[in-house]
Amino acid sequence: MSADDALDPDRLLPAEDRTRGIARELYALVADAPIVSPHGHVDPRLLLDDRPYADPAGLLVSSDHYVTRLLHAAGVPLDDLLGSARPREVWRVFCDHWHWFHGTASGFWLRETLAAVLGVRAAPTPDLFDGLVEALAQPRLRPRALFESFAIEVLATTDDPLDDLGVHDALRDDPAFGGRVIPTFRPDAYLDPAAPGWSDRIERLGASDHAGYLDALRARRAHFIEHGAVSADHGVEHAVTVELDPGTAQSLFERARAGRLDAAEAALFRAHMLFESARMSVDDGLVMTVHAGVQRNHHRQTLAHFGPDTGHDIPVATSFTENLRPLLERFGTAKDFHLVLFAIDESVWSRELAPLAGFYPSVFIGAPWWFLDAPDSIARFRSATTETAGFYRGSGFIDDTRAFMSVAARHAVSRRVDSGFLARQVVEGRMTVAEASRVAIDLVGAIPRRAFKL
Amino acid sequence: MSADDALDPDRLLPAEDRTRGIARELYALVADAPIVSPHGHVDPRLLLDDRPYADPAGLLVSSDHYVTRLLHAAGVPLDDLLGSARPREVWRVFCDHWHWFHGTASGFWLRETLAAVLGVRAAPTPDLFDGLVEALAQPRLRPRALFESFAIEVLATTDDPLDDLGVHDALRDDPAFGGRVIPTFRPDAYLDPAAPGWSDRIERLGASDHAGYLDALRARRAHFIEHGAVSADHGVEHAVTVELDPGTAQSLFERARAGRLDAAEAALFRAHMLFESARMSVDDGLVMTVHAGVQRNHHRQTLAHFGPDTGHDIPVATSFTENLRPLLERFGTAKDFHLVLFAIDESVWSRELAPLAGFYPSVFIGAPWWFLDAPDSIARFRSATTETAGFYRGSGFIDDTRAFMSVAARHAVSRRVDSGFLARQVVEGRMTVAEASRVAIDLVGAIPRRAFKL
Amino acid sequence: MSADDALDPDRLLPAEDRTRGIARELYALVADAPIVSPHGHVDPRLLLDDRPYADPAGLLVSSDHYVTRLLHAAGVPLDDLLGSARPREVWRVFCDHWHWFHGTASGFWLRETLAAVLGVRAAPTPDLFDGLVEALAQPRLRPRALFESFAIEVLATTDDPLDDLGVHDALRDDPAFGGRVIPTFRPDAYLDPAAPGWSDRIERLGASDHAGYLDALRARRAHFIEHGAVSADHGVEHAVTVELDPGTAQSLFERARAGRLDAAEAALFRAHMLFESARMSVDDGLVMTVHAGVQRNHHRQTLAHFGPDTGHDIPVATSFTENLRPLLERFGTAKDFHLVLFAIDESVWSRELAPLAGFYPSVFIGAPWWFLDAPDSIARFRSATTETAGFYRGSGFIDDTRAFMSVAARHAVSRRVDSGFLARQVVEGRMTVAEASRVAIDLVGAIPRRAFKL
Repeated sequence: MSADDALDPDRLLPAEDRTRGIARELYALVADAPIVSPHGHVDPRLLLDDRPYADPAGLLVSSDHYVTRLLHAAGVPLDDLLGSARPREVWRVFCDHWHWFHGTASGFWLRETLAAVLGVRAAPTPDLFDGLVEALAQPRLRPRALFESFAIEVLATTDDPLDDLGVHDALRDDPAFGGRVIPTFRPDAYLDPAAPGWSDRIERLGASDHAGYLDALRARRAHFIEHGAVSADHGVEHAVTVELDPGTAQSLFERARAGRLDAAEAALFRAHMLFESARMSVDDGLVMTVHAGVQRNHHRQTLAHFGPDTGHDIPVATSFTENLRPLLERFGTAKDFHLVLFAIDESVWSRELAPLAGFYPSVFIGAPWWFLDAPDSIARFRSATTETAGFYRGSGFIDDTRAFMSVAARHAVSRRVDSGFLARQVVEGRMTVAEASRVAIDLVGAIPRRAFKL
Repeated sequence: MSADDALDPDRLLPAEDRTRGIARELYALVADAPIVSPHGHVDPRLLLDDRPYADPAGLLVSSDHYVTRLLHAAGVPLDDLLGSARPREVWRVFCDHWHWFHGTASGFWLRETLAAVLGVRAAPTPDLFDGLVEALAQPRLRPRALFESFAIEVLATTDDPLDDLGVHDALRDDPAFGGRVIPTFRPDAYLDPAAPGWSDRIERLGASDHAGYLDALRARRAHFIEHGAVSADHGVEHAVTVELDPGTAQSLFERARAGRLDAAEAALFRAHMLFESARMSVDDGLVMTVHAGVQRNHHRQTLAHFGPDTGHDIPVATSFTENLRPLLERFGTAKDFHLVLFAIDESVWSRELAPLAGFYPSVFIGAPWWFLDAPDSIARFRSATTETAGFYRGSGFIDDTRAFMSVAARHAVSRRVDSGFLARQVVEGRMTVAEASRVAIDLVGAIPRRAFKL
Repeated sequence: MSADDALDPDRLLPAEDRTRGIARELYALVADAPIVSPHGHVDPRLLLDDRPYADPAGLLVSSDHYVTRLLHAAGVPLDDLLGSARPREVWRVFCDHWHWFHGTASGFWLRETLAAVLGVRAAPTPDLFDGLVEALAQPRLRPRALFESFAIEVLATTDDPLDDLGVHDALRDDPAFGGRVIPTFRPDAYLDPAAPGWSDRIERLGASDHAGYLDALRARRAHFIEHGAVSADHGVEHAVTVELDPGTAQSLFERARAGRLDAAEAALFRAHMLFESARMSVDDGLVMTVHAGVQRNHHRQTLAHFGPDTGHDIPVATSFTENLRPLLERFGTAKDFHLVLFAIDESVWSRELAPLAGFYPSVFIGAPWWFLDAPDSIARFRSATTETAGFYRGSGFIDDTRAFMSVAARHAVSRRVDSGFLARQVVEGRMTVAEASRVAIDLVGAIPRRAFKL
């Protein structure tokens, strides 16, 4: 890669010649394969409205908390990046701090997006701003055109249980748009009695007792299923599960509605509802995904001024073996139950996730997530999980992004790194080229389609 | 490696030319070295009876819970693999799922065994079944012939404390068998009052009080030592240790016999007995090995239907620094005391095991164990422990297997990966070829012999 | 590297040709850059006195607990290495155990020091002893000459809060010495009421109540700042922090002075004082460094006979996310506050340190520390932290050593490994050579200078 070329065709492939040659062959098999994106945070309105992006600062900086967090760490106040900050000024600040992104996943996606989508093959500079504003007005850079040029086969959004999914309806009914965009049921705020506004939400669900509460959740899941949802997503700090008898559950529910749960009881209620969510998935077939091990909104003042998803959700040590035991003893071998476990504490990859997925047919190892969906991290993930569980017990890659324009770049990173990993297996005599080719193809097709019932 | 050749002579060696060349030289020094196998689970009756293996399904699939667990994870009920399942059908199912093993340690051992031992150099297929049945009838594939062709110098089994070791006697006294097969004292079920049947076992030990219980254990250890045992093996979920005064110990023992210990008291008793086991090792010289950090029989229903060792023992986070402190303060520098610590939570390799073994002369770092005795895992282990503790504070490789036919393949994996690791040290100017050669040779000879007092 | 040449110019650079070529170019940019050493344990008297080293055993073995611990692990009693042990005999024992250091960080530094400083390019032998005694008498091997030949720009020592810093004064005022040697405020023994002698120390501080205690600490910090200190260093087993109201603090202080705190109260007091130390750093500008996660003096008998820092400080599992939350909520975005977090549990690198430093402008990721400042460990550190936090949120390399003669070798290791890491980034198309060059240069200059306000 030279300073004027961010698009080395061999980028992210292993350095050694023979390995790189095989990796190149493997990557060629999947470089243009359709994108299966079963978990992410793209706003469906973006595709419904199909408005051009207004400017590069809003597109690449302000709307991406992976980027703003690192600028904040570099000393730029969030006030200068969010809200009423002037886009031209945001862009200038971003360009000034370009080297802070060297070596980061965000930096790589930005390079890829700038080069492959926007034609900017060198470091971004303030004087590019006007040109980029102009470029973004082109029809080929509007969301729907990108959806097509990215070859997205299916894109899942993440939605509130009480969302009427009208945007999804409108998008599906729009004759001018042929893509498949499906909702995902994300009930966290309805399952955690300690979440601000929980009681109001339960009120809106129309639940007067615990049985009614479960019924209302089931009804909303059915609504999502009718609208094409294939999964229900759970974000928890710890994936604790417990089975409660109905009397205890009802009693906790009443105290929760009255705002009288202490911290231990709230945790018990959450563990119970994670267990009940698994039961619902067994019954209605929604794939259950669990994103565990993050302490949300670590910096209270930033939350107060700028809201959630502003870069200070910080991981903690995680465990699944003991925490999920009640759930897995009950549902681990249930027919057609799929439980995808995403971890951000990489010590659990070889210790817990691969062994669990190496026994339970229901358990799928979630792809490296959040801070870890980056080249070296993905390579560590493959190394840590494959020897115990193989390739076929994983979820396939998940882009998990709000940044729609980076979707293709993220999947490309995963495909390149997996090609390199497989090429090494071949060079080390562990698989044949034919076997590695099949795995490479399955990793972007059969594997995520099976895991997410697509 | 091409589709018709699973035996690339350079398999598992690093890709880069110069490194591979040196690795090849180092591997040549140890490729044919005798196998020292100081810890494993081969049934000694296999060698006493020396019967031919009946069929490839029983040999390679049904009897290996590493393989059946992954087929189970792929959706095959254990009923179709174990017990009365028809071998030809088991073999067909296994062949159909061959790609599920790509990239796994089990897949690699199966390849090696199929190719090197059985002459099958391509993916296994159902139509090979009859040919393999025929092949297995050959004298050269009977257990004793394999013992010789594998060049096994010593093979340790794992045995119940009350085993009379008659099978070992008969094997030793058989003039037709010249191999060294030694028992290992494995007292877990006698040390954990929460283990089903503990009280009956204590009854059979003939112990009426705590002092008698300790004496009976000492006597059984002496019996094992007379029969050639060199080590006592301890499998624990957490390696907690504590020194109790005799009165407290006696009182706990009485309550345990009466079945009246609560969970905390049972844990205290286990911790006490791990401490006392160290004292016994100091006294009688048996090497103490500890395999820590696994939650056994995670899925109760599978345990109920299929028994233990059926693929659902799942690791948990482990710590040694604090847990072993009482034991190490008391015995850590005791003359000739050897304590080999096996971990399956790889975060402890650099954090705890290497620092402990880098100070205490008694502590040896156990080789990567269970899910982790695979090529990438072994490389991670070397990287994590060597910079702190060097090569000479490890146990040497442990195959830990029931699958006798894979013993040679497992040791070969370790030797190849270590050769690659050492070759990198040379290419990076950290060791000379002469130094690396000495280490390579010691790793398969002097090091395990010293650690296990062989 | 051949047996007679420990100084392969490409040592520690990646094996693959193209990567090595780029790494060599990058390393050339920084090989001779001045050494910034903002944290270490060199005794300033060494430079004040500037006496020649007496013999190689005292220099390379007895005074380095990294070396004596491994000899102890190899079975050599500490009595044979420390105190009144005869240097010639110590040297002989060390030479006999040379292979125990193969692959270790200490072994590499010893090789480097022997070869580059002392001209010994082969394995050390007993017969070298007299020659080395002679060599060490040369003026060019006296501490001040080494300070100059190592090109040390600044060297920080670690000092007791009540140290009058007279040695630093004398050194600064010595017209024959032009180097910059600065003290570091290390108050652990004054902040932990469970530390032996705490109450006496508080007495010597002249503090009669909690407010006076805080004032006295502030006064000592001011004294250190006047003498050039830029940081205050905190070594804790767990980095727990808590804000207490003055009444509670005063009450705990009184009970601590009376020796009446239980373990939980002592922990609370330590957590409070870590919090207060951050407040002081915000106020007076001293960079706050935290070395967390080590259980000191694991083997009580060795402590009793040989004192602290004798090789048996053992790491434990660490967490920062929850523990530092009170501190970071209060001071995490405070102007000019710098908090450098050193971990020895590498699972926190990607899980906690990089995410924290990727948001909080105050948090800097401490370089790999203690057992982990070795080639492979540094490479793992870069891989684990860079994708989340980039290169510019780190502290730069810290040699953390008492072994002054190894300072240059340690910094060289870091520079070589970072060059290799950056070269791989280039070969994988993730950075340009120009970008990597800037990062390489900043890593040894701008980055540590900024982190430590130098």
